[in-house]
Amino acid sequence: MTASKFRFFHPMQVRFADTDAQGHVFFGEYFTYFDEAFAAYLKAIGFPWSGLAELGIDMYYVEAGCQFKAPSYFSEILHVHARINRLGRTSLTCELHIYKEDSDTLVATGQVTSVVVDRETGRPMPVPDRLREAVARYEGEENPA
Amino acid sequence: MTASKFRFFHPMQVRFADTDAQGHVFFGEYFTYFDEAFAAYLKAIGFPWSGLAELGIDMYYVEAGCQFKAPSYFSEILHVHARINRLGRTSLTCELHIYKEDSDTLVATGQVTSVVVDRETGRPMPVPDRLREAVARYEGEENPA
Amino acid sequence: MTASKFRFFHPMQVRFADTDAQGHVFFGEYFTYFDEAFAAYLKAIGFPWSGLAELGIDMYYVEAGCQFKAPSYFSEILHVHARINRLGRTSLTCELHIYKEDSDTLVATGQVTSVVVDRETGRPMPVPDRLREAVARYEGEENPA
Amino acid sequence: MTASKFRFFHPMQVRFADTDAQGHVFFGEYFTYFDEAFAAYLKAIGFPWSGLAELGIDMYYVEAGCQFKAPSYFSEILHVHARINRLGRTSLTCELHIYKEDSDTLVATGQVTSVVVDRETGRPMPVPDRLREAVARYEGEENPA
Repeated sequence: MTASKFRFFHPMQVRFADTDAQGHVFFGEYFTYFDEAFAAYLKAIGFPWSGLAELGIDMYYVEAGCQFKAPSYFSEILHVHARINRLGRTSLTCELHIYKEDSDTLVATGQVTSVVVDRETGRPMPVPDRLREAVARYEGEENPA
Repeated sequence: MTASKFRFFHPMQVRFADTDAQGHVFFGEYFTYFDEAFAAYLKAIGFPWSGLAELGIDMYYVEAGCQFKAPSYFSEILHVHARINRLGRTSLTCELHIYKEDSDTLVATGQVTSVVVDRETGRPMPVPDRLREAVARYEGEENPA
Repeated sequence: MTASKFRFFHPMQVRFADTDAQGHVFFGEYFTYFDEAFAAYLKAIGFPWSGLAELGIDMYYVEAGCQFKAPSYFSEILHVHARINRLGRTSLTCELHIYKEDSDTLVATGQVTSVVVDRETGRPMPVPDRLREAVARYEGEENPA
Repeated sequence: MTASKFRFFHPMQVRFADTDAQGHVFFGEYFTYFDEAFAAYLKAIGFPWSGLAELGIDMYYVEAGCQFKAPSYFSEILHVHARINRLGRTSLTCELHIYKEDSDTLVATGQVTSVVVDRETGRPMPVPDRLREAVARYEGEENPA
């Protein structure tokens, strides 16, 4: 996998609270950044969190991974590039690449996989067609998922 | 107010994630420690979190303060001394003093004030008598609240 | 103290990680928001964090307080209004008021007090004149500190 | 990979601050739990954090992954089982399995990989022989790494 920039990115700023005694961002915080960017991506393609509730669905993470490439520091602006690159029957995977603003410094790459569940029963259910279509429409042909 | 050790304390260990780029525990984390100790205190006097739900009540913080006395570091064991030292009609205040284990080093002092609310309506309601009695019984006469 | 909006505010978005099982932002997170806004305020008046290092100084919090007025929720945009409203010999206090974006809903008010220390010795030292002047210049006469 | 319990585990309690608005522990927090347990494991085999500094080394995470199996909740006691199961030339991997106390409920499995670096230069350096030997001694023949 070559790191690359996607159509969508979520800009954010490193909080001092995100750093640790090694001086840079605590490794676990990148998953918070992934989560933020994934939610922002869903909103960008027409599925804000509130919209999921209306569809009667919720999402739970089932797997997450991160590869740390370069440290980031307090107050830096990061661009968390995100795209859904796999749509299974009941789950979907979002790929994430974090870059420093205005640079080609790659901070981290990662993947988060969520399962779609029925809000009432908590049971896995098929990814809604409207979500599949929204991903296809957003990513288009130039960024095939 | 002179800092002192109370009948109850909650022992806990500083996580690396709690530290920041200044090398010590991030100041905001002490409120997490206060919250942990307050919940542990309530449990110790007979009101575990689950018990609050059974009584039909919940608690929301309305005010919190902390005075930082000495830094603490990764992996240190802290003793968070706690006691309810004020019981109002619908609110109560917990006083907290954090010491390093086996030492007289005072790390922080603080206060958190909660309002008791009806779980259904979210409206403030009187502090249950059973909670008042439990505090009086636990603190006894030697630690008058 | 009447809550009010100041000349400076720091806009920020609530992360899902900031929420807790009561459904809203965890009370301790507001101190992280205060810290972010205080750093942004210092930068706005000409003292970015890196500039403090160049002056040979650092700052440590000695006291912090927050009054919680209304809950805030995932993905909401908050405006953290900030101003330095007290400059002592070696310490300074920043007053903070958090509002929801585009509304008059006051979420929290607070105060953080920092002591200025010599970066080498860790000892308190006088607040630099350049910082006093920058605050006076920024707050001007319309927002007397 | 079958989840299993290892010789070493780190017991810990879920903080309320660790939970999110879905009611359970925020997925990113498990990496904090992994970090805590990895540090505790190193200490258990004779390499407390302070000892790493004395050896002139530090460690940086280069990769981390987690598979989420079951939610965990506020105040639950978790046992984070840990063992170093791969020792490369300059890196090592710690495998982690989180169980609820006194139960066979598996909450999460994960892996964190660290690179050993020279504290002065920040450059990768060989895993110290003393650390290799300590792992071999601790895991013994019944838990071959």
